[in-house]
Parts: sequence; structure tokens; C-alpha cells
Amino acid sequence: MNENWLDVIRWTDDGLVPVIAQDIDSGKVVMFAWMNRESLALTQKTGYAVYWSRSRKRLWRKGEESGNQQKIKAISVDCDEDVILLDIVQEGGIACHTGRESCFYRTLEDNKWVENSAVLKDPAEMYKK
Amino acid sequence: MNENWLDVIRWTDDGLVPVIAQDIDSGKVVMFAWMNRESLALTQKTGYAVYWSRSRKRLWRKGEESGNQQKIKAISVDCDEDVILLDIVQEGGIACHTGRESCFYRTLEDNKWVENSAVLKDPAEMYKK
Repeated sequence: MNENWLDVIRWTDDGLVPVIAQDIDSGKVVMFAWMNRESLALTQKTGYAVYWSRSRKRLWRKGEESGNQQKIKAISVDCDEDVILLDIVQEGGIACHTGRESCFYRTLEDNKWVENSAVLKDPAEMYKK
Repeated sequence: MNENWLDVIRWTDDGLVPVIAQDIDSGKVVMFAWMNRESLALTQKTGYAVYWSRSRKRLWRKGEESGNQQKIKAISVDCDEDVILLDIVQEGGIACHTGRESCFYRTLEDNKWVENSAVLKDPAEMYKK
């Protein structure tokens, strides 16, 4: 496969690139995470978002536990070639491990972080074995 | 001023936080940059995006040269408190230094990065002294 497109990316010293996931239906930015070269290649190849978990130091197939996979509709790169934007369809309608649509569920109001959206599913339900 | 909300942020070892700017009118993700504590405080206080330029190692008042300021409509934080999402009004309709609406102007098609949007203004015009 032609992987020249991966060479365009300016990876961090750790071999990572920041990734923004935007829901193509709601338009919401639902998540921010990181990818390494392998995970970005897999994302393109499989059509589903595969991130690099910095905490677990391993590939993280989004939805591998919760079932809430992210189907890829488009992969874009920014002007400096060091940030990736994904247009995704969020399966299950939930991107956040807290059970909300988006990870960005707190907004600043009068110098306080105030929740702007509801929990759609109990995380205990999402991550039960 | 109450700045407890700034203490919620989990800054990187370098004292920074990644920031996503989304145009509230078009819904487009237009930019990704970084802020330090001072720049985020100034962003909230002034109502216009102030970033931290990692290359220039100084505060970067978005639009200080181009005039394309970003008026803040909302500041949100993610579940891990380590990413900021800004809802902005993009003055001039151009966020990218290339003269495009968004920095994410190349999308992957058949293993190639293909431009998806036009230059609205010549950068030489935007940055002339």
C-alpha cells in the first residue's frame, strides 16, 4: 500500500500526532486523543478509529470495550501537518467514557465549569465485562 | 478574580494545554493550538483567543497581525481536564495563515492529501506590514 501520506505527518518526538474527532451528524467535537503511525495507518485501513493510548502504552481500538466505535468518514490534516481531524460517525452516539455524547461536557460559566449535557448511558453498563 | 477554574486544568509538564477552536457559525474545526495559564486567563478575560506560540515562545493574540481575531462564545473542557474546546466567531472568516477558513484544508483521498477548500485571501495581503 502507498503510505507516503503518512510521511507527510510531522510526528512528535514520541512519534505521536494529536487527533480531533468530530461527529459528522451533530457537528460536535466529541473527543481528542493521540495516534502513532501504526494506529493512523490502521484507522485508514480498517475504516474505524484506532488511537494510541498514552496511559496504557498500546493501540486502543475505540469502542473495543464500550462497543462505541467511530466509523471514519474523512481524515484531514492541518496546515502544519501536525494535527489530524477525523470526521466520524459515532456508533452508539456516545464518545465519552462518562457515557456522554462528547468529552467536552463542561463549559465555563461565571468562572465555574458547568455541565452542558447529560449522561446517556451508565458507564457501569458500558464497561461491564 | 476567581481563577479556581484554571486550577482544574491538567497542564502538560511544559505548562500547556491543547486547544481546539470551532467556528460557531459553520461548525468547522478551524484551528488547533496551545495555551498556557496566562493565555487561557487572558482569553477568558478579554473575550478573544490568546494562544501560546510554542515556536515563538510568547503569547500570541490570534489575529494580532492578520486582524482575524477569534471572538470567544464558549470555553469547554474535556472529561480528563487536559483539552480545551473553544466556540468562536472567526472574524474575517479566515483562521488559517494560508488564507483559508480552516487549517484542516487537506483531506485524504486514495492515499493522497487533497485540498478541500479555497484560499479566500492572499497571505501576502493578510500579513503585509
